[in-house]
Amino acid sequence: VSALSSAAGRQDPSIALARWTTHAEPSALQELLASASHPDVTSFALGLPAEELFPRDAYAAAVQEVLREDPRALQYGPPSSALREHVVELMRLRGVECRAEQVLLTAGAQQGVSLLSRLLLSPGASIITEEHVYPGFQQAVQPFEPVYRTVPTDRQSGLDVTAVEHVLRRERPAFIYASPEGHNPLSVSMARETRARLTALAAAYQVPIIEDDVYGFLGYGEAASPPMLALDPDFVLYVGSFSKILAPALRVGWLVVPPRLLRLLSVLKESTDIDTSTLSQRAVAAYLSTGSLPAHLTRLRHAYRDRRDTMLAAVARHFGTRASWRRPSHGVFVWLDFPDGLDTGAILPRALERERVAFLPSEIFSVPGGPRQRNGMRLNFSHCAPARIDDGIARLARLLDTPA
Amino acid sequence: VSALSSAAGRQDPSIALARWTTHAEPSALQELLASASHPDVTSFALGLPAEELFPRDAYAAAVQEVLREDPRALQYGPPSSALREHVVELMRLRGVECRAEQVLLTAGAQQGVSLLSRLLLSPGASIITEEHVYPGFQQAVQPFEPVYRTVPTDRQSGLDVTAVEHVLRRERPAFIYASPEGHNPLSVSMARETRARLTALAAAYQVPIIEDDVYGFLGYGEAASPPMLALDPDFVLYVGSFSKILAPALRVGWLVVPPRLLRLLSVLKESTDIDTSTLSQRAVAAYLSTGSLPAHLTRLRHAYRDRRDTMLAAVARHFGTRASWRRPSHGVFVWLDFPDGLDTGAILPRALERERVAFLPSEIFSVPGGPRQRNGMRLNFSHCAPARIDDGIARLARLLDTPA
Repeated sequence: VSALSSAAGRQDPSIALARWTTHAEPSALQELLASASHPDVTSFALGLPAEELFPRDAYAAAVQEVLREDPRALQYGPPSSALREHVVELMRLRGVECRAEQVLLTAGAQQGVSLLSRLLLSPGASIITEEHVYPGFQQAVQPFEPVYRTVPTDRQSGLDVTAVEHVLRRERPAFIYASPEGHNPLSVSMARETRARLTALAAAYQVPIIEDDVYGFLGYGEAASPPMLALDPDFVLYVGSFSKILAPALRVGWLVVPPRLLRLLSVLKESTDIDTSTLSQRAVAAYLSTGSLPAHLTRLRHAYRDRRDTMLAAVARHFGTRASWRRPSHGVFVWLDFPDGLDTGAILPRALERERVAFLPSEIFSVPGGPRQRNGMRLNFSHCAPARIDDGIARLARLLDTPA
Repeated sequence: VSALSSAAGRQDPSIALARWTTHAEPSALQELLASASHPDVTSFALGLPAEELFPRDAYAAAVQEVLREDPRALQYGPPSSALREHVVELMRLRGVECRAEQVLLTAGAQQGVSLLSRLLLSPGASIITEEHVYPGFQQAVQPFEPVYRTVPTDRQSGLDVTAVEHVLRRERPAFIYASPEGHNPLSVSMARETRARLTALAAAYQVPIIEDDVYGFLGYGEAASPPMLALDPDFVLYVGSFSKILAPALRVGWLVVPPRLLRLLSVLKESTDIDTSTLSQRAVAAYLSTGSLPAHLTRLRHAYRDRRDTMLAAVARHFGTRASWRRPSHGVFVWLDFPDGLDTGAILPRALERERVAFLPSEIFSVPGGPRQRNGMRLNFSHCAPARIDDGIARLARLLDTPA
């Protein structure tokens, strides 16, 4: 066979990849996970929850109970009705009335966003996002090569709805991506009025909103607004997760969507990974059935609020007037804006090498074709040991004082 | 705002979906899961493993050990090095030498195939598959709307390599999908010579093979050939899973690929669901470290071989010369070919309603644009209680004797 004999040049075996891979890069988060996880680095970089606060014993007991009682807990299986009902109850805590038929169980919020992207995005479609977007979102949509239409974010009230309307007057994007509570990375929560205006626009222009609410349950006492889902169950597709309120390794999250979308989303889910672990689903349901989640959430909020306040005090002490920031009502981040001219991305390598401190620079959150902020910094307060926060912030500030 | 006031017609809120959804349907497997799971139905329909054979106590012990010893077992985390090394050992049992740097941990084989599809498929690309393909594969590639080039399957030696070469002479498809051991649904294992010819073609035409080997460890004593990966690590992308050899609810599987593809696949994996459950990874590694997998596999193979033989005896007894079949050396299915004119899809509703027996008709495995066999039947022997197999087959056979 001539083709076979012409294959002598095996030195450079070459597999042709999908087109989107030509501009794919490993995420900055993934790359940093390695260097920022050394024990001598004080890391404010990632958005990890605090592992010492996981309800480890209670979850271990739940797993044992489920494994002891039911051999089918390790089998493939349909989504757990009990867990879907628990999600309905949880949503009620957020001020949302929904039904189990609207709940799709996922392997976490990232999968939720990924499934919704596949449901809504034809290749080359446009989407509306803020100028700062969680890189995981960008990765989820990347294979569809969407056109980004970005809108600014007000540091106090959130996403700029007027800018959204300007886009909607010209075209019909596949969706609007918004994170109204503890926005990642800006840590803004959207004003109640902003939510109302955005959902009204979504309905008027028949463009769905993907509402990423993974930090919605991590509120620190300020009066909270209900998610946009409460305002419009037809055009708001809600993304929730147990990763931040119980533990990431459960790999369980949920969507709340109009019932008519559940069938297609179930097909998509099945095509992606068959099902969410039956064992995880049942163990989470068993844990929730003990009724200990509310007390756990209270502990979590107290601990994170303390860390937030420790970080804000340190930022005030060490940065003073050299940066601006706000106190976040939700989530796990503090966002710093520095004066023009300061490039946080250029500082990061020195921060890691000289001061052994890690953070994420603003440029990481820019989207293709959107504006690229260079003078912002995302600091996580949930994962760092409280005793190390002040010292870490002091070292970051010292870095800004010293020449490169 | 005029757009807002024109939104009076809220009676039919309409969200525009991605283009591929216009021809998406829930999988037949998913639909049947409901009606075939009634306790009074003898189901040969799905490919479920036997839950009574799961190493439930040993896995429970492994989970407890991991949760007791390490709070980070519930955290996000990089892929487990220990588990990747265990996979290298497992692959050695299949006759493959590989390195941990080639191993990507997944949430199961379905995710493995899904990730490889995203890596390799640009929208509208062509792919080579057999005429009978597992529906889960079709779901995984559907969003990319590939063009199927199908090749026949010899019931004895597997995929028709000459037909593959005819396609490759004309065009360069994104990949060839093949399942050389216990093919789903035909239950054929590819002859050693067929594997050698196919891998040589893949290299010659620089077209990768996705080798789906989920049943590779379920062999029943006949001399087994190594997977194609052993023949060409450059052009064979291997898909493995713990779902069939330990339990599906672990949601852990793996890919073995050229190291240069691991970076991109890791990005894709992260974009899909961040990571495979750290707890599952560590618990599976802890279980494997006890060294009890080989004995478990031996038990599993004995039990499934008995069920296979019970089913083959029942098929011979009740179908006699009215169907043709072969004894599968691997996997969990027996495939029946009936004479032309018999439509197994038309029989299924009666089988369920009148005889309370479930199977999958051949048409479910046809791909878009490919030929559509009507007179085939897939029977699963792994999940049915052995004592019910003969009666179930007898009832199926009786159905063929009676008019509709």
